[in-house]
Amino acid sequence: MASPVSPPRGMRDFLPAEKRRREHVLAKIRRVYTAHGFDEIETPVMEDSARLHAGLGGDNEKLAFGVLKRGLTPDDLRAATDPLDLADLGLRFDLTVPLARFYASHRAELPTVFRSIQIAPVWRAERPQKGRYRQFVQCDIDIVGESGAIAEIELIAATIATLESLGLDGCSIRINDRRILTAMLSSLGFAESDHASIVITVDKLDKIGRGGVVAELAERGVDAGAIAALDDLLAAQTSDTGTARFGRESIARAVPADVDAGLIDELASLGAAIDALGSNVELVFDPFLVRGMGYYTGTIFEIAHPSSSSALGGGGRYDGMIGRFLGTPVPAAGFSIGFERIVDLLEADASDDRDSVALVADPDVDPARLVKLKTALIETGARVRLERKPRNVKPLFASLAAAGFASVATVTSSTETIADLELRPLA
Amino acid sequence: MASPVSPPRGMRDFLPAEKRRREHVLAKIRRVYTAHGFDEIETPVMEDSARLHAGLGGDNEKLAFGVLKRGLTPDDLRAATDPLDLADLGLRFDLTVPLARFYASHRAELPTVFRSIQIAPVWRAERPQKGRYRQFVQCDIDIVGESGAIAEIELIAATIATLESLGLDGCSIRINDRRILTAMLSSLGFAESDHASIVITVDKLDKIGRGGVVAELAERGVDAGAIAALDDLLAAQTSDTGTARFGRESIARAVPADVDAGLIDELASLGAAIDALGSNVELVFDPFLVRGMGYYTGTIFEIAHPSSSSALGGGGRYDGMIGRFLGTPVPAAGFSIGFERIVDLLEADASDDRDSVALVADPDVDPARLVKLKTALIETGARVRLERKPRNVKPLFASLAAAGFASVATVTSSTETIADLELRPLA
Repeated sequence: MASPVSPPRGMRDFLPAEKRRREHVLAKIRRVYTAHGFDEIETPVMEDSARLHAGLGGDNEKLAFGVLKRGLTPDDLRAATDPLDLADLGLRFDLTVPLARFYASHRAELPTVFRSIQIAPVWRAERPQKGRYRQFVQCDIDIVGESGAIAEIELIAATIATLESLGLDGCSIRINDRRILTAMLSSLGFAESDHASIVITVDKLDKIGRGGVVAELAERGVDAGAIAALDDLLAAQTSDTGTARFGRESIARAVPADVDAGLIDELASLGAAIDALGSNVELVFDPFLVRGMGYYTGTIFEIAHPSSSSALGGGGRYDGMIGRFLGTPVPAAGFSIGFERIVDLLEADASDDRDSVALVADPDVDPARLVKLKTALIETGARVRLERKPRNVKPLFASLAAAGFASVATVTSSTETIADLELRPLA
Repeated sequence: MASPVSPPRGMRDFLPAEKRRREHVLAKIRRVYTAHGFDEIETPVMEDSARLHAGLGGDNEKLAFGVLKRGLTPDDLRAATDPLDLADLGLRFDLTVPLARFYASHRAELPTVFRSIQIAPVWRAERPQKGRYRQFVQCDIDIVGESGAIAEIELIAATIATLESLGLDGCSIRINDRRILTAMLSSLGFAESDHASIVITVDKLDKIGRGGVVAELAERGVDAGAIAALDDLLAAQTSDTGTARFGRESIARAVPADVDAGLIDELASLGAAIDALGSNVELVFDPFLVRGMGYYTGTIFEIAHPSSSSALGGGGRYDGMIGRFLGTPVPAAGFSIGFERIVDLLEADASDDRDSVALVADPDVDPARLVKLKTALIETGARVRLERKPRNVKPLFASLAAAGFASVATVTSSTETIADLELRPLA
């Protein structure tokens, strides 16, 4: 039963153990990203409503929490016809719109090729359900100002290194290129004006299967010849995965013959570059990978893991977007890892690097002496917690052990200095 | 001139160098607080409007940003007579109301004496001005469930250790007790019903001086005899500071003779306990220290620093408040440090603990090889950034040095492995 004093619907409190675990994982992610030459930035949680609703956020724009204007009068309320008339600000629903705004604000102060890290919460007014929260943390890296494939190679290399540093085994990265997807749809006979809606159906392949995709397209009255050609192509996909599929020939075999060879070469080179790094994260070419957002313009990628039905992260090249608020095109690519899903998959391991000692005091010990002993013990490099000695110490010792305390010492009125303390392990 | 794409009014972006500096300071603060046995928690940035406006936040309640209800219809807008009719949630304006809500939600899962750390942003719709932001970080430690003075001793000890770990010299801590303040006002002849408004004026002593306080009280028609008695007491305050003033006798000398000796003893013991820790942060008894919030019930304290006209932090005992959402009284005391003010006082010092190397590549170097070299160098423990070699390397080298990169190596098409790299210092 929900407590009468629970946090707002779909949002979570984090108790000490969980908070420690989350910060521990975030610190590892930050450490790998910065090793790879990325720099962390921060933007306010709110952006101007007009920017959040500028068409860069796709369906997420509808999920933005609006922030009421200050000083509204009853007249203002009466005059309003749309809730957005009353909200000049909103909470960000992703970190990409804020990055575009940040880059437009600060371009002159940033390096020509800017590698950013953003690790921060975002908010979406989704219908709360298992694993979906209204406040959750995103971890994005982006390379702005680099049009060459080296951006994608660096992003994927940094992401693979992060997954490895977290000990998350068994991940694979699925890769495609929006331009290949488009060329493929044209080749199969789909009218270009239908592409946007067709990829929405293709994107459901994992969930509804080949038959489901074909049925949904037929229902919508899409050209039957194109659907049949797509069905043939889907049927011809082999189930072998792995880097072998990343050779030029295997990519070419998976797509219609008239897809531009240059695009296939580009993707094959990207695969070879990642291969050369010698990681054991598998790369998979997936000609039907779509990625939801409309702003992708080139390579797209997604992290898959056997124990998660949805992706653990994803990204791609989105050359049109970062320049939108600047009024001039800027090449960009990014990779976001799904922190909330990843932290749930990881084993708890967030011990402090210091000795953790609990000082359990008899009731008659002077508080001043107690804090003095504590301070002296901290100065030796320990983490120290004070406790009053209860009649029965067992439950206390158990909770201290659960909180990561390694040892305990009793303080009596005759304990003068920390040399008098007898530390016993809390096992 | 404000950029046409600036962050929302009164809110800030943090570029890499500033973000690094902030995170570096926050990490130090966290490390000291956890050494002192406190545990970090996190709550959502939003709370139910009803809780934010329950009267626990004083004037700050008026500054809360309201969050629009989702799915409002034009009829809802027409029916609204107050902006709060349209906002079911709001952004927190402090970390104390969320702590009270958190404690009510999770009391059963927390230790009897719960020592919390909250390091997180809060939002206030203040009129933007120098040094006042609409989004800023607060660092709070609180001890919930401990009614004894040991809570205050631990809080002050942890805060002093934090100031020392940050290298912030010259701080002093001013201490008073709300009960002494009240007893003093009664003794001087102020009617109890006027106390709340009188302390608002007394709180301005630092800014408007003794004459200003007396004039403001006179203007408001407060009893002239009481004002004269206050004026005498203010005139009798000596300007000597330091721990000497914390003796029982010196406290007694500073307040009217009929103030309860028990209260004076309590405060003197607290001073002696802090003294015994042997820090060089000065303790000052200030009988006219008020602290703004109405919820304080006992000891109050504030961090003063010669280079800041306002306090760098403060806190006190607030026994009535944490239990408000629980319906049962819970003793509590807290200390908050003013992170934004402190970070501005500190010198920049946020170097990475790893070797930072920039690889500057000739244009003809294959991207795959370049990222492979980068990855190999990272595996030796370095932080690495890739750069294209510009015609003139001087500005690039200067910006790399400014970003904390210690050395640079040029990569040419003949660089095969990291053994071929020649690292040169970037001085």
